[in-house]
Amino acid sequence: MQAVGLVVEYNPFHNGHFHHVQEAKRVTKADIAIAVMSGQFLQRGEPALVDKWTRTKMALASGVDIVIELPYVYSTAPANEFARGAITLLDSMNCSAFAFGSEQGTITPFLNTFSLIESNQQQYNASIQQAMLTGVSYPQALHYAYETLKVAYPNDYIDLAQPNNILGFHYIEAAKALDSTMQAVTIQRIEAGYYDDINQEKHIASATGIRKALFDHQDVCNFLPQPSYTALCNWQALHGKFMSWEALWPLLQYAILRHTPSQLTAFADVQEGLENALAKHAKTSSSYAEFMANLKSKRYTWTRLQRMLTHIYTGVTKEQLHAFNNPTFIRLLGMTENGQRYLSMHKKQIGLPLISRVAATKDPMLTLDIQATTMYNLGLRLFSTQKIDEDIKSPPIRV
Amino acid sequence: MQAVGLVVEYNPFHNGHFHHVQEAKRVTKADIAIAVMSGQFLQRGEPALVDKWTRTKMALASGVDIVIELPYVYSTAPANEFARGAITLLDSMNCSAFAFGSEQGTITPFLNTFSLIESNQQQYNASIQQAMLTGVSYPQALHYAYETLKVAYPNDYIDLAQPNNILGFHYIEAAKALDSTMQAVTIQRIEAGYYDDINQEKHIASATGIRKALFDHQDVCNFLPQPSYTALCNWQALHGKFMSWEALWPLLQYAILRHTPSQLTAFADVQEGLENALAKHAKTSSSYAEFMANLKSKRYTWTRLQRMLTHIYTGVTKEQLHAFNNPTFIRLLGMTENGQRYLSMHKKQIGLPLISRVAATKDPMLTLDIQATTMYNLGLRLFSTQKIDEDIKSPPIRV
Repeated sequence: MQAVGLVVEYNPFHNGHFHHVQEAKRVTKADIAIAVMSGQFLQRGEPALVDKWTRTKMALASGVDIVIELPYVYSTAPANEFARGAITLLDSMNCSAFAFGSEQGTITPFLNTFSLIESNQQQYNASIQQAMLTGVSYPQALHYAYETLKVAYPNDYIDLAQPNNILGFHYIEAAKALDSTMQAVTIQRIEAGYYDDINQEKHIASATGIRKALFDHQDVCNFLPQPSYTALCNWQALHGKFMSWEALWPLLQYAILRHTPSQLTAFADVQEGLENALAKHAKTSSSYAEFMANLKSKRYTWTRLQRMLTHIYTGVTKEQLHAFNNPTFIRLLGMTENGQRYLSMHKKQIGLPLISRVAATKDPMLTLDIQATTMYNLGLRLFSTQKIDEDIKSPPIRV
Repeated sequence: MQAVGLVVEYNPFHNGHFHHVQEAKRVTKADIAIAVMSGQFLQRGEPALVDKWTRTKMALASGVDIVIELPYVYSTAPANEFARGAITLLDSMNCSAFAFGSEQGTITPFLNTFSLIESNQQQYNASIQQAMLTGVSYPQALHYAYETLKVAYPNDYIDLAQPNNILGFHYIEAAKALDSTMQAVTIQRIEAGYYDDINQEKHIASATGIRKALFDHQDVCNFLPQPSYTALCNWQALHGKFMSWEALWPLLQYAILRHTPSQLTAFADVQEGLENALAKHAKTSSSYAEFMANLKSKRYTWTRLQRMLTHIYTGVTKEQLHAFNNPTFIRLLGMTENGQRYLSMHKKQIGLPLISRVAATKDPMLTLDIQATTMYNLGLRLFSTQKIDEDIKSPPIRV
């Protein structure tokens, strides 16, 4: 049996994801698809709309055979670390290929870009540092350095201003660093741009567009496989609303104001005077939207700020986060019968301990995942009922 | 003009307090009464039913002429530190006497008890230490040591098992340590025991009884001066309910679970393995009542545990709290015209800077008071609207 690996967040699982799973299996001739999925907090530094168990069910109902959790350490990290964690886990799962969606749609330009940067690493880094001195954000500095380099060595490269191309680049980079035997495959994203609003005449919309529509109380049933749509409806019926920073604002504001600015610097990603802006704006803002509007500056991207807020919210310090390097386990969130068969057959090739129940294990990286779930569930409790220790007691979902 | 000082919490101001103010003025022949009042968090380690501004208004409407704030550092401290802060402030206000309610009702037994303990300090301390080794709480150990000492030197002493006698003893102790010229006066508490339920046929009930009745939605108008009753009704109309630990539970639970047990030990009063009990019970309890029932042990009094929870809630660390010794300012919460006249006449005798507006001052002890108000107001926001920075902008109340 052969598996293709996917790096996902499924926030929520939609028709575009469905297409991606089918294509990934078809193109790589894989028997099953394994998704490594962010847990309760995502790479954009946001809580997931619905919890990881609900998102696992969506995936298993629509073509994914195994869902494993991308630990908090990586799921809330910058793109390169996010990719490193995810690709390492897929490699440990003995996948023969990994497939990612991209604006580019063909793999050669990714490989060219990787070679270009790898062969000119010093010049590239110096160019980034130089651009940073002008006060632009890190992604902008990266873009500048890349464009400069491309001009010097003409070839067919990817456009690194596209969000999915950036992630794809880091997947390739991570696989190369691992010396992984996994084949890299990319699948063209269809119809919907990353930030586009939904268009009811189509059946594909971006996750961002769908989330926006959900918060605007628009119907999104056109854009989701039936099981995903049902899962969202059930969540809404149970909890009354979807999780968001706005819903967590009373706790986030309390968390920020409970510390002195100097104490805030202990939390991961709080850097360079941000502690004073945090304290100041937390006091005067009456909603998350207002707070972010006040906090945002040219210097930091929205995502960068949100990741910092995630760490403050969950109480994760620099000291805690920097203690980790490589993934130390594989947390199984769910599987189909086919997925289970794959696990039995590949038992000896799986390179990390496979964890089904977390209660018995004391891995510090896993402790942060449990902590993230506790904090997510305390947020849910502000407007609904939720068991706090659900994560410890839940076995993997089997369908 | 002469002033009598009172140490109060007024949670809420009731007929017993009214009686106490009148008697204190009458017995000491004082022209005005000055109350040093706990702010948002009280000596029993609880948030006040209604905020300090509302309680100030109650006091000024019923015979008190000046209300000053007992800083958080003292208002949430054990009885001896609470008394030391309060008596130091009254002494700084140039009071000629201080009057406290007690079960005892006459001052000589207080002075006898003070002399007894002072003259046998070493023996007394050793006896307390010995009793502590058997695993009893500090108040129980104190009681044992005191009873042992009393037997050896028969005289007319106070009963230190009575809560108001204990406080009175510490007031005397603090005044002696200061070499204060203030005359000590005690006034017999009438009719209601400290923990008694209300009795609708009487006009006096304890604050504890009144609070219990309020949370049980019983009418308490028999037991309060009209202005106090009106203030409570207004508060209820504005906020829907009175402040309590139960109302703050979502934030307290979040605050506890956001830290690892080892991080919890940084907060004031978290000692000797309590961090593990905190983490464990915060996870499994679904209300404050359930949490406290789980946390309570023979080793710690209810009050001791609640003071610790106050510090965790407000985010005050051992390092912050232990940086203080003596009061560094007098925060004016409100005054009558007579009170204002007293301040003008005694300007030169007042021993500490008198603070009317906190925005401009950067005293670290005052910073904690502002922090306590911010945290109190964030709690109010869970069920009502409230300006967070109200404390900074509010001038003293004048009536």
